[in-house]
Amino acid sequence: MSATTKDILSRVRMMIPPLLSKFHKGQLGRVAVIGGSEDYTGAPYFSAMASAKLGCDMSHVICTPTAAQVIKSYSPNLMVHPYMRSSPSPSSPSLTTDASTEPHSLASRIIAMLSRLHVLVIGPGLGRDPLMHDTCALVITAARERGMPIVLDADALLIVQNKPELVRGYKLAVLTPNVVEFDRVTKALGIEDDGTSETGRVEKLARALGGVTVLQKGKKDFLSDGEKTMVVDWEGGRKRSGGQGDTLTGLQASDLTDEVHNAFMNIFGEVDVDGDEGDETGGAARL
Amino acid sequence: MSATTKDILSRVRMMIPPLLSKFHKGQLGRVAVIGGSEDYTGAPYFSAMASAKLGCDMSHVICTPTAAQVIKSYSPNLMVHPYMRSSPSPSSPSLTTDASTEPHSLASRIIAMLSRLHVLVIGPGLGRDPLMHDTCALVITAARERGMPIVLDADALLIVQNKPELVRGYKLAVLTPNVVEFDRVTKALGIEDDGTSETGRVEKLARALGGVTVLQKGKKDFLSDGEKTMVVDWEGGRKRSGGQGDTLTGLQASDLTDEVHNAFMNIFGEVDVDGDEGDETGGAARL
Repeated sequence: MSATTKDILSRVRMMIPPLLSKFHKGQLGRVAVIGGSEDYTGAPYFSAMASAKLGCDMSHVICTPTAAQVIKSYSPNLMVHPYMRSSPSPSSPSLTTDASTEPHSLASRIIAMLSRLHVLVIGPGLGRDPLMHDTCALVITAARERGMPIVLDADALLIVQNKPELVRGYKLAVLTPNVVEFDRVTKALGIEDDGTSETGRVEKLARALGGVTVLQKGKKDFLSDGEKTMVVDWEGGRKRSGGQGDTLTGLQASDLTDEVHNAFMNIFGEVDVDGDEGDETGGAARL
Repeated sequence: MSATTKDILSRVRMMIPPLLSKFHKGQLGRVAVIGGSEDYTGAPYFSAMASAKLGCDMSHVICTPTAAQVIKSYSPNLMVHPYMRSSPSPSSPSLTTDASTEPHSLASRIIAMLSRLHVLVIGPGLGRDPLMHDTCALVITAARERGMPIVLDADALLIVQNKPELVRGYKLAVLTPNVVEFDRVTKALGIEDDGTSETGRVEKLARALGGVTVLQKGKKDFLSDGEKTMVVDWEGGRKRSGGQGDTLTGLQASDLTDEVHNAFMNIFGEVDVDGDEGDETGGAARL
């Protein structure tokens, strides 16, 4: 472990907020995961449950009604809200009322929850349905207006690549693409792979989106806001099962709740993560 | 344990692919089980879960909507797709639109998934509904065109005995009949029991289907492609509960994913499993 890594880890430990007896329910984190659809129920469960296990006081899932029934059955620790709808299909003709197919109407119930939340995760088990994506786009805009941190993963990255203006310039947006998703997003945004370093490619994407945070997952993990980049080059577990990325999003959400985020700013606001100023890729601290 | 058995087992150990840090999600196995119906939800769960526990990165189940709700609730580790439909009945008149009773339309959603999968298991908890079987037949044809390994068990063996041309000559089809199913299939295909050895009967079935792999489960297990036969004569557990055969299909599917199958070909491509060339039944290695 390098000296930089040791230093960063010791600061990370300081980020863990104390449990004060004066705290009341919800003060140490209220997270909601938007995802969970006809095909996927495990992903939002792993994400929300990870936030709870890392210490969030309240963990919500917002998904379709059939997914909600299942996710509720996984654990009584999650609050699961069946507010999302997928587009009506010939095989499910019952969902044809205006209220259930109009994205503004659907989004309004979710937006009404935002004042009670600290962080949104959008994407785990979301799927690719257009109505689901349109609803999410409206929620992203509303969350941004309120200055809420948003973690975007999985199929929510398609929303970003189709409408990059939703997050462009928003410093509290975090994108967590894996290798395949990273290639797709960069191509969609017209970022050419000019043979630069891995660090350089991540920084390019973060800059193209005006300084959002990009966490590219892979053999090494790269975390960049376009200016500074951290490289996680520890070797972790080598299994790559479905669900691991979802767990990561929930952990990140917990790290972005008010208490932890304030601690982060106090602790890392002063750290120079550009370990090597002469590095042509912009400098990367090794974690 | 015989010398041959020891040799085969040591080679089997070599088949286990290494976990490389460069791998990404799904590279070490993507399996889907088609099964799960009004009456059966445990069977496809055991099958898909066995593939996950043996190490597959992603395990799917494709079943009817009511079965899907239940199977999803067993575990968030499986991805469960409610794409199958059984024939409309007087007691379930709601499923009467074209899309939900037309096998080509139903199969098309499943066939669209095939490019993202390595191996199909068809049969656990499938039942005998004609629409379910017609849908499976179309999926088998599409999977065969793509060169995907297919494990067929339980009621999917009825599809094979009614339409043997679906798998005839397809070397990547594996049939796993128990004693009762074996008798039914051989009778349906007009294979007479002329008093030959057990090994000979299994080889006859494999040859009648043009070199598919037959795994006959029983007191001993016989594994044959019509040319070579292995006999598993170890005494395993003596309990014969429902679900054991389903578990076996999921384990086999994991063994047929690209990485493991390539390792198998490297390791067993050269082994002479015909331990006794003079054996009139074609020779059987004892495992």
